[in-house]
Amino acid sequence: MSQEDALRPGEQRLAIAPDDDAALRFIGHIETPFPERADCPRQGSEEGPECTLVLKSDYAPALLGLEGFDRIEVLYWLHRARRDLLTQNPGQDGVFRGTFSLRSPLRPNPIGTSVVRLIRAEGCRVTVRGLDCLDQTPLLDIKPYRCDYAPLAKGKNIKVK
Amino acid sequence: MSQEDALRPGEQRLAIAPDDDAALRFIGHIETPFPERADCPRQGSEEGPECTLVLKSDYAPALLGLEGFDRIEVLYWLHRARRDLLTQNPGQDGVFRGTFSLRSPLRPNPIGTSVVRLIRAEGCRVTVRGLDCLDQTPLLDIKPYRCDYAPLAKGKNIKVK
Repeated sequence: MSQEDALRPGEQRLAIAPDDDAALRFIGHIETPFPERADCPRQGSEEGPECTLVLKSDYAPALLGLEGFDRIEVLYWLHRARRDLLTQNPGQDGVFRGTFSLRSPLRPNPIGTSVVRLIRAEGCRVTVRGLDCLDQTPLLDIKPYRCDYAPLAKGKNIKVK
Repeated sequence: MSQEDALRPGEQRLAIAPDDDAALRFIGHIETPFPERADCPRQGSEEGPECTLVLKSDYAPALLGLEGFDRIEVLYWLHRARRDLLTQNPGQDGVFRGTFSLRSPLRPNPIGTSVVRLIRAEGCRVTVRGLDCLDQTPLLDIKPYRCDYAPLAKGKNIKVK
């Protein structure tokens, strides 16, 4: 937890339980032009700079077919965020909001989700536009964007409008 | 890992590394009318049945302000999914796809993401439509849907079209 994450007056925190319900493995990391939190945009834009998802080489086969999608969903681990805030005062204006009504990185399970434009996928490197996270953020998952995706498995498919 | 997750011919798996890069705490669970995987729709629909996010009582303050959103993003832990598949053959038709070009629950970090319609939030119970996960799925996070959300913190806000 960094000093940037110090409590603001009136914010509520939780004496949180151990975080041992399930465990994650990082599948790689993300290269962005944002070395510090102050450099990060508050929300990614498809007109933003190129960023690169760098997978560990073992995972290369799992990218097969990804280049068929224009947009992909990226999940990552907000490794510098404190995890015990219940309410936050992001505007520092006395207006408090619950953590679950914010997209702040400070949350019990600091998982970031973004929908980004896929520029290219080569080997273990996937170039995208639309991220707002720190350089070297650990990567958790890549999925096709739900609105562009038709499930392939047999079963109760429900057509998405 | 359940028998439902047995390898199909030709699917590629990874001798995966330990899953100890980061740890999760479940913030509650999800009640759905889908007790078994065969009951789950392949993709949620906003016309689907009501489901309930049941938070542990400690987290109630973190819901403050959530009712102002029509749509929310829900993250959950796909607790019955195997985690070692690199390629999959979901249609069982000999067409292989990489795990990261599928929204299959079987993935290195089995985190499900859905955008759902918020029906109501009362105490620790949040009723939604649009989920497709198993009953009793562990809950990881709730966020406002990105397209309906304007960041509140001071900084480099980029307007979302």
